[in-house]
Amino acid sequence: MKITTKALVTLRPRSLDGLASPIFRILRTMASAKERLIGRLYDVNALHAALAMMDWDQQCLMPPGGAEARAAHSSILSRMAHEVFVAEETQRALEDFAGEAAPGSDDEALHRVVRRRMDQSTKIPAEMVEREARLAAEGHESWVKARANNEFNGFAPHLSEIFELNREKAELLGYEGHIYNALLDLYEEGGTEAQCTQMFETLRGPVVALVQEIAEQPEVDESFLIGEWPEQSQRDMTEYLARQIGYDFNRGRQDTAPHPFCTGWSIGDIRITTRFLDHLGSAIYSTLHECGHAVYEQGSPMEWDRLPLAGGVSLGVHESQSRLWENIVGRSPEFIGWMEPKLKEHFPALGNIITQNLVRGINKVKPSFIRVEADEVTYNLHVMIRFEIEKDLLTRQMEIKDLPGAWNEKYRKYLGIVPPTDSQGCLQDVHWSMGSVGYFPTYSMGNLLSYQFWACLKQDIPDADEQIGTGEFAAIHEWLRTRIYQHGSRFTPQELVQRVTGKPMQADDYIAGLTAKYRSLYQLGAAV
Amino acid sequence: MKITTKALVTLRPRSLDGLASPIFRILRTMASAKERLIGRLYDVNALHAALAMMDWDQQCLMPPGGAEARAAHSSILSRMAHEVFVAEETQRALEDFAGEAAPGSDDEALHRVVRRRMDQSTKIPAEMVEREARLAAEGHESWVKARANNEFNGFAPHLSEIFELNREKAELLGYEGHIYNALLDLYEEGGTEAQCTQMFETLRGPVVALVQEIAEQPEVDESFLIGEWPEQSQRDMTEYLARQIGYDFNRGRQDTAPHPFCTGWSIGDIRITTRFLDHLGSAIYSTLHECGHAVYEQGSPMEWDRLPLAGGVSLGVHESQSRLWENIVGRSPEFIGWMEPKLKEHFPALGNIITQNLVRGINKVKPSFIRVEADEVTYNLHVMIRFEIEKDLLTRQMEIKDLPGAWNEKYRKYLGIVPPTDSQGCLQDVHWSMGSVGYFPTYSMGNLLSYQFWACLKQDIPDADEQIGTGEFAAIHEWLRTRIYQHGSRFTPQELVQRVTGKPMQADDYIAGLTAKYRSLYQLGAAV
Repeated sequence: MKITTKALVTLRPRSLDGLASPIFRILRTMASAKERLIGRLYDVNALHAALAMMDWDQQCLMPPGGAEARAAHSSILSRMAHEVFVAEETQRALEDFAGEAAPGSDDEALHRVVRRRMDQSTKIPAEMVEREARLAAEGHESWVKARANNEFNGFAPHLSEIFELNREKAELLGYEGHIYNALLDLYEEGGTEAQCTQMFETLRGPVVALVQEIAEQPEVDESFLIGEWPEQSQRDMTEYLARQIGYDFNRGRQDTAPHPFCTGWSIGDIRITTRFLDHLGSAIYSTLHECGHAVYEQGSPMEWDRLPLAGGVSLGVHESQSRLWENIVGRSPEFIGWMEPKLKEHFPALGNIITQNLVRGINKVKPSFIRVEADEVTYNLHVMIRFEIEKDLLTRQMEIKDLPGAWNEKYRKYLGIVPPTDSQGCLQDVHWSMGSVGYFPTYSMGNLLSYQFWACLKQDIPDADEQIGTGEFAAIHEWLRTRIYQHGSRFTPQELVQRVTGKPMQADDYIAGLTAKYRSLYQLGAAV
Repeated sequence: MKITTKALVTLRPRSLDGLASPIFRILRTMASAKERLIGRLYDVNALHAALAMMDWDQQCLMPPGGAEARAAHSSILSRMAHEVFVAEETQRALEDFAGEAAPGSDDEALHRVVRRRMDQSTKIPAEMVEREARLAAEGHESWVKARANNEFNGFAPHLSEIFELNREKAELLGYEGHIYNALLDLYEEGGTEAQCTQMFETLRGPVVALVQEIAEQPEVDESFLIGEWPEQSQRDMTEYLARQIGYDFNRGRQDTAPHPFCTGWSIGDIRITTRFLDHLGSAIYSTLHECGHAVYEQGSPMEWDRLPLAGGVSLGVHESQSRLWENIVGRSPEFIGWMEPKLKEHFPALGNIITQNLVRGINKVKPSFIRVEADEVTYNLHVMIRFEIEKDLLTRQMEIKDLPGAWNEKYRKYLGIVPPTDSQGCLQDVHWSMGSVGYFPTYSMGNLLSYQFWACLKQDIPDADEQIGTGEFAAIHEWLRTRIYQHGSRFTPQELVQRVTGKPMQADDYIAGLTAKYRSLYQLGAAV
């Protein structure tokens, strides 16, 4: 059977959402502000759901011939989502709803979240949205070329424009204190430059010292992790791990993509992707990382489905959940010991590797040029370098032409290595080319928060490590669900962190946890 | 990297379609009627693209947990598509465009197609669209239950309501002659009850006679086609065949679905599905069938992409292309002989089967209860029975309660068999339960047209059969592309058939082709 979608009359609404008849129009006018607002939010959400699915399909499945129309479709649906959201009807419902929402209620949280987005969406004029889109497209194209040819100069003019536009955007959004705050806030509500600076200053000393101390040790062998691993075995192994830690395949699925990601369009359909490479760790830890994002999203209360309170509250908190499952759980000696028999069953070539060497290989620390391939210890140093540079570029304390030199100098200083090319240096990341300035620190916030949450979890579940060692993840998952996942975006990131850990985000637990783990792994004796 | 879609400001238009700034608004007002109309059509198309992708995903990949939100999203986007299409801005642009379109031009064709849809979309009030949607959902649910439990009485009240609604709808749409014409026209522009009645009257005698003559022959053995065929081999074999006949995998892909279908959202992304069952013919002929639909869609001129002139013109013409590749090409002795070595390579269990028996097994004719499993010869008799019944139900010449008896009596009369249960009888098809009345005859029109087109093709390519025998499909594909595919929806179905074959649709070529093929296969000697 083939039914074309052409006959418009056969495309018909299937639920109450679709009511457009006069009688329902009248009822809608009589509806409460909350009902009117939610109706509008459902409409915006449906367009975002379509956009998310189109993006997912593009990254996972789309044939090359589909690219041109996909860009056009996404562009149109983005514009519609924006128009429906900022329309007078939505704004009026939001105004009216402000008076209805009781203090401390979910309604008040909903109002706050929508108000914040409305402010962001209305402060940026359409002209700038368009300019930003064009610049992102051109910048990205130019960056792809520059990276391939190792020609920073080709990308420099676009980068200059991108930072100029971000300065203008920050002024329109408004901020207190540092101009960086306006941009960071887009990704991490309430995050500030001062907070990031303090975070990295606290980290820098102990982490650089740890990296240096490890560098003096004999290099760890991880060569046994590299080979031609059958895709089906990697698929089976990663799906097994995902299921064990609590990812619900009835409400999601795993596909492959060149760059793993997590996405979704309802609490009942949160999808992850992974990739199958020569390094066995790639698939396993990509899956655990994306699972961390996914179980957070799957853990929202169903009654918030398709509304802005569902889903993770910020990029930093989201990253804390992916890093917690990837690093704290997944790279722990207990986890590796537990998965070892299954791993050897799927990959018989590992049969002779003893547990200790598996653990050391998987946790190998070695300064490298590329952030996305960095180990857990050096990772934040990569982020710190980007933060320092983008801040200086934004405030014109650094000129674009001086970026490559500054980049290399910072790599020498913090990691003890100098990238041989700009492609392996300041041209490696996609973020700036797409116009995203202020995004990077959320990666390090996630790392800090993962250890901060874990320290609290350990107080409530003292034998968490032993549970991991026997493949018991239910109590850990449930603790995270009740403390974090089920709150969705109800609290601000700061409120959530304070509620869960009794203190604001700080680096102590991270430094303590990281140091203890790696001093033990590298048998460094007591910390100096 | 994980980027949530929550920050609305980061969702931005990526091309000219997305321009919403004041200056572009002004330019848009100054634009020609054609530009304004096309802008609106692009918007409607983007929503339809999202709907089509959501439907594809639901049938191929969606986890069960995604169903509820998917229904809500589809409902909202359907409503939006309808609203954007019937909005005053679209109607005004369409009115203005009428004066601009030169006679005989593509513009005139575009105007005709959009005008027709606008009429359909505006004649049905929103209240009825909503009632139809609800009835379709309830009717479908009730039908699923009734079929599972073989209880026609549970479904009868819904069926009664569905026919009542279709009567009302037909009156609103308007028609000349028979009330059936209004409904059939939704699926086959210009199709009439008189045309269908004549079609089946011409077919009935020769086909019933052929079926009876074949029934007197010894039963053909097809047991060798049934087995546990490895999925990967079926996948490889079907993709090979699809590629050979000209389906472009750069502009599509094949997935699996419980009920095979073809869909798409741009000329550059037309997807097919198949299924892997115990009967090897299922995957192979499902793929060839859907490929026929797909190459038709892929053959539209790229400049019509995302506009209503792209894609097949009607369900009947569409079905002619799927049946041409499935039956006339795919089930021919030449095709089977050509694919035999490949088939035996993928499915070694067939190694001992001689070509003649492969051909006879694949073309086995045997009256059966289920339309979708019917062979080429008996297929139209199934359709004819449904046409006769739905026409009588619509005009109240038959009462709903008399449907099962009438169904069984017609099966006895035309096919010589009586369904043992209603589940294998009048409850087998989904169409009526979803509210579709007037759809069935397009299947038979497709069968007739496939032979009518083929007869013309054979005049231009006299050695077409020999080409098939050597795996040469390029000339056949190209003939179909230039005569049919590239015209998309530019002509009405009647105009297209007349242009290509020099005559209106008729049954002669079909009856001659079918009779010749099966008399030869069953060695029946000259026709009586």
